[in-house]
Amino acid sequence: MGKMKRYKLTLEYDGTAYYGWQQQADPSLPTLQGQLEKALSLIYKEPVKVLASGRTDRGVHARGQVITFDNLGKISVERIVAGLNSILPRDMLVTGGGEVDLSFHPRHSAKGKWYRYTIYNDMLPNVFWRNYSYHVSYLLDTTAMAAACAYFEGTHDFRSFCSARTGVKNSVRSMEKCWLTSDEKLIIIDLRASGFLYNMARIIVGTLVEVGRGKIKPADISHIFDRKDRIMTGPTAPPQGLYLQQVYY
Amino acid sequence: MGKMKRYKLTLEYDGTAYYGWQQQADPSLPTLQGQLEKALSLIYKEPVKVLASGRTDRGVHARGQVITFDNLGKISVERIVAGLNSILPRDMLVTGGGEVDLSFHPRHSAKGKWYRYTIYNDMLPNVFWRNYSYHVSYLLDTTAMAAACAYFEGTHDFRSFCSARTGVKNSVRSMEKCWLTSDEKLIIIDLRASGFLYNMARIIVGTLVEVGRGKIKPADISHIFDRKDRIMTGPTAPPQGLYLQQVYY
Repeated sequence: MGKMKRYKLTLEYDGTAYYGWQQQADPSLPTLQGQLEKALSLIYKEPVKVLASGRTDRGVHARGQVITFDNLGKISVERIVAGLNSILPRDMLVTGGGEVDLSFHPRHSAKGKWYRYTIYNDMLPNVFWRNYSYHVSYLLDTTAMAAACAYFEGTHDFRSFCSARTGVKNSVRSMEKCWLTSDEKLIIIDLRASGFLYNMARIIVGTLVEVGRGKIKPADISHIFDRKDRIMTGPTAPPQGLYLQQVYY
Repeated sequence: MGKMKRYKLTLEYDGTAYYGWQQQADPSLPTLQGQLEKALSLIYKEPVKVLASGRTDRGVHARGQVITFDNLGKISVERIVAGLNSILPRDMLVTGGGEVDLSFHPRHSAKGKWYRYTIYNDMLPNVFWRNYSYHVSYLLDTTAMAAACAYFEGTHDFRSFCSARTGVKNSVRSMEKCWLTSDEKLIIIDLRASGFLYNMARIIVGTLVEVGRGKIKPADISHIFDRKDRIMTGPTAPPQGLYLQQVYY
């Protein structure tokens, strides 16, 4: 008998074709977790379960999702990665892998996450960005949006910026950075925080879009934080603009 | 009875899901022409046939395909464009439209075309570029490739750079510009010519990749032109990296 080992993999995926990360009750619905577990089970010739740094919703993408799984370690990391990349569909890719301590947990050990949100801002949509951005047809004021970004930085109670469905008691999180860059018709919003509540990134972006339309002033963000009420914020921006860029440990 | 009018439309499309531009013998295979004619026929409540500036192969994209169709002109151009964009699938978009003279022909009237080819050059592929670029895993020498591009400019007999399947007698074309730009892992090759022979853009790119690998020297391009033989050139680069950018009239 070998010794149980824990493996950590970094994953890039295009979420377009999937019902989100998490395995669904109906196994006929394709999920990213399901695809990965199926591929690992083929390699190990036995069922393998994985843990992720967090779920991503249907349509959300990842450039750096982190997962772990345990096995007796008869197969080298290099062979696992090569094997997975030959089995996985072309919209999923393992970009790195290694062995970690058995105390490592992809969610609990995470010190923070970086999400990126992409807006395509032009009168007409763009067919190549349809699954990879949020198309906003009215011209957004990126200067006001960038000013509003600054209000999200620091430690706040993000209660106003999470889905009412969230079950968490403590909604205080630290936003290390929130910044906007724009490149022709693309507006990119990067968010780095100690943690994200359910839908938090997409609600912040939805609120920033309201700022860009002139419906909310940058300085109003402070009041919205104070009110601690989801009703104050903008609509949840759609999933296809969101990318889990990196998880920090 | 109204007077027959000719309409010109500019189309952007993601070719991933289609069996190329041209309607296939088997009508169950989705084609871009088929989708467009179906949508126009819905708007006009009668069969409508279109003519294009040229066919694009399966998997090839367009940012500026040009088509025409004739009709008695009871519907304004604005309503046609808006109607099409509400009916067409999200991977097709009409970006402009207008009425043209009945002497205008989208292929015969064309003075030239601009094609763009995108290479993704990195050890690992990238899931987001899988349908929109040619993944080349070995590091390409872009300086040599850019030098080779210059050899394609000017008026040449492009016989060596077209599919042996081509039926054309005259394979002389004028390449106005052929230039390379690179941006991190992306290598973009732009080709503007008076006309393109069958697979010409993809064979030129396949040859440039051979230059980038050091298998062909830039100066060898002159000899390849002289030989007038397809056997001398690199393999045809895959379709998903190719975009019909613009047609000039």
